[in-house]
Amino acid sequence: MTDSADTEQGRETGTMTGKTGMTVGIVGLGLIGGSLARHLASNGCRVVAWNHRPHPYEQARRDGIACVDTLEELAGHPGARPDLIVLCNPLKAMPDMLSRLAPLIDRTTTTLTDVGSVKALVRQQVVAAGLGDCYVGAHPMTGTERSGFEASDPRLFDHALWAITVDASTDYRRFLTVARMITEGCSNRCIVIDDGTHDRAAALISHMPHVVATALINELTDNPDRNIAAALAAGSWRDMTRVALTDPQRTRAMVDEDAENVEALLRHMAHRLVAVADALRDGDDAAIGGFFAYGQPFRDYKTACAQDGASVTADMPLAPASWRGQLLESARRGEHVVAWRSDRVAVVERRPAVTVRQADQE
Amino acid sequence: MTDSADTEQGRETGTMTGKTGMTVGIVGLGLIGGSLARHLASNGCRVVAWNHRPHPYEQARRDGIACVDTLEELAGHPGARPDLIVLCNPLKAMPDMLSRLAPLIDRTTTTLTDVGSVKALVRQQVVAAGLGDCYVGAHPMTGTERSGFEASDPRLFDHALWAITVDASTDYRRFLTVARMITEGCSNRCIVIDDGTHDRAAALISHMPHVVATALINELTDNPDRNIAAALAAGSWRDMTRVALTDPQRTRAMVDEDAENVEALLRHMAHRLVAVADALRDGDDAAIGGFFAYGQPFRDYKTACAQDGASVTADMPLAPASWRGQLLESARRGEHVVAWRSDRVAVVERRPAVTVRQADQE
Repeated sequence: MTDSADTEQGRETGTMTGKTGMTVGIVGLGLIGGSLARHLASNGCRVVAWNHRPHPYEQARRDGIACVDTLEELAGHPGARPDLIVLCNPLKAMPDMLSRLAPLIDRTTTTLTDVGSVKALVRQQVVAAGLGDCYVGAHPMTGTERSGFEASDPRLFDHALWAITVDASTDYRRFLTVARMITEGCSNRCIVIDDGTHDRAAALISHMPHVVATALINELTDNPDRNIAAALAAGSWRDMTRVALTDPQRTRAMVDEDAENVEALLRHMAHRLVAVADALRDGDDAAIGGFFAYGQPFRDYKTACAQDGASVTADMPLAPASWRGQLLESARRGEHVVAWRSDRVAVVERRPAVTVRQADQE
Repeated sequence: MTDSADTEQGRETGTMTGKTGMTVGIVGLGLIGGSLARHLASNGCRVVAWNHRPHPYEQARRDGIACVDTLEELAGHPGARPDLIVLCNPLKAMPDMLSRLAPLIDRTTTTLTDVGSVKALVRQQVVAAGLGDCYVGAHPMTGTERSGFEASDPRLFDHALWAITVDASTDYRRFLTVARMITEGCSNRCIVIDDGTHDRAAALISHMPHVVATALINELTDNPDRNIAAALAAGSWRDMTRVALTDPQRTRAMVDEDAENVEALLRHMAHRLVAVADALRDGDDAAIGGFFAYGQPFRDYKTACAQDGASVTADMPLAPASWRGQLLESARRGEHVVAWRSDRVAVVERRPAVTVRQADQE
């Protein structure tokens, strides 16, 4: 990796992007598909979209999106194939959508990706549909609690971070197509990891905490003095239970799709809570002190993120034999891919990291 | 209880209040003491304040607060005693402050109260100082993560809800002095409960969730892919861990002071999380469905709170033998005391409640 600690250069790289000459097909104009299509179109990409019902088409066309009535039209015809098709349909519609697309896609020209919040399951479904060789996974870290094209907003994709997921069979050129759609088509940034790493991380920062928030409102509901507790509830309770208030069926689906990882993390959390309970019962000051000190690296990381430091970027040449490992290690260091110097050289931004010194944890 | 479902009447009762002719002494001009003193002064109360260091006095005097150099002056002299002294010092300074005040307070004229976030512990300390007969507990549900007079803001007490805590020995006239300081002096509202009920509710909606948030950041810190998880973290993670980022020593003190209740709730939570983990392992759809449905009464309550319904108030005459129980039951129904029709008739506002139908929970 060679350094180019020059924020101006970093910014120029960002501004250079914009129009990619890429044609992107979007399947599903819901909150995420609609926002992505509008964001890409406003950034100068050619966007073709299909939705299972045509109700968003009138507005979408005003936003510069070419709306088509059939999946055949979306898949295009010789000489007019999309570079990329992004599956933005609900996860539960994925197997059906894949089986309908499988006979239509020109696998030599078109790369397939998606925006699903779990990655191992989607890849299994893609492989089952015989589309594994043209697939690269993706998951943009954006969204709101609303849904539907009416709630879509191209600004949801301003400065968004995506996870791209690859496996040993992923073709580098197809990966690059998805990465350029993100960094150039969307002016966004990405990290590149494997499905398992993605799904474990998503379970940690989202799926498991949703269960914890739900357990909190269940605990209040169970308490005979629930109205007194609800009256005394202030900011900490409001923030910690907010995600338990959204559609519980949607949360349940998310948890079910990542069940194994969520299960493991719930057992970890239960173990941590029982350890604190035991320490409180025993008056074990050292254990309680250790518990409150343990997460200090994360507090320090958040403090560092809040400081408006200069962005430091570096060029990272990617070797044909080791690009997956290089990009995974970069993500583990907390770096983001923000641009491409060339097809074989990623520009990564160095960022604050959660730094655990072994001494802190002993 | 007689109904007076008349919002105009409710509002008039609110506006009637304002000046009470009451003199309130404030011990400690930190975030809460400073905000309360400024709020009371701007509402027309006579406020006398003492702080262990005089640095806030210049600004406090500009806000109409009479600042004194000694606790003797705060306790006053015959014919010029405060009706109420509010202890706004840190909890850890409470035993010292009480032993200094004990010989100074005129116990026949002055009522003692506090703003501490745990109530059983403070009452023990007050009783130990021999001041139990003039004490009524109080806890305003307000604050920010900042501290000190510099961070104080009288608007922290706009529309605030207070918990007043009483026990079998609490004198009704002293209770009424504190209640009128809240409803008339502050134009705030209150619920009236016992110490144990307060401390259990506070553990449920604040102290235990602080431990849960801390356990979440510890789980991330422990994860080898902590930087990837941190990169993918979005709104749900941010909200659920916010309170783990504030001073961990302050959180630890809060938990230690309410250790028994926090311990019990942590065990409940661990049990709930393990039950979900088991259901995920076993693919027990009914158990998972039941878990996500269980808190629906709290979701319905939040929806009802968000609706801008007309405020319905009712007069509640309080009987000398049963006022504590009457007020506790009112709080359990989710009502707030908003004003006083007379010394023996509280005006309560009816509000949405967390309503558990037995059938939902079986």
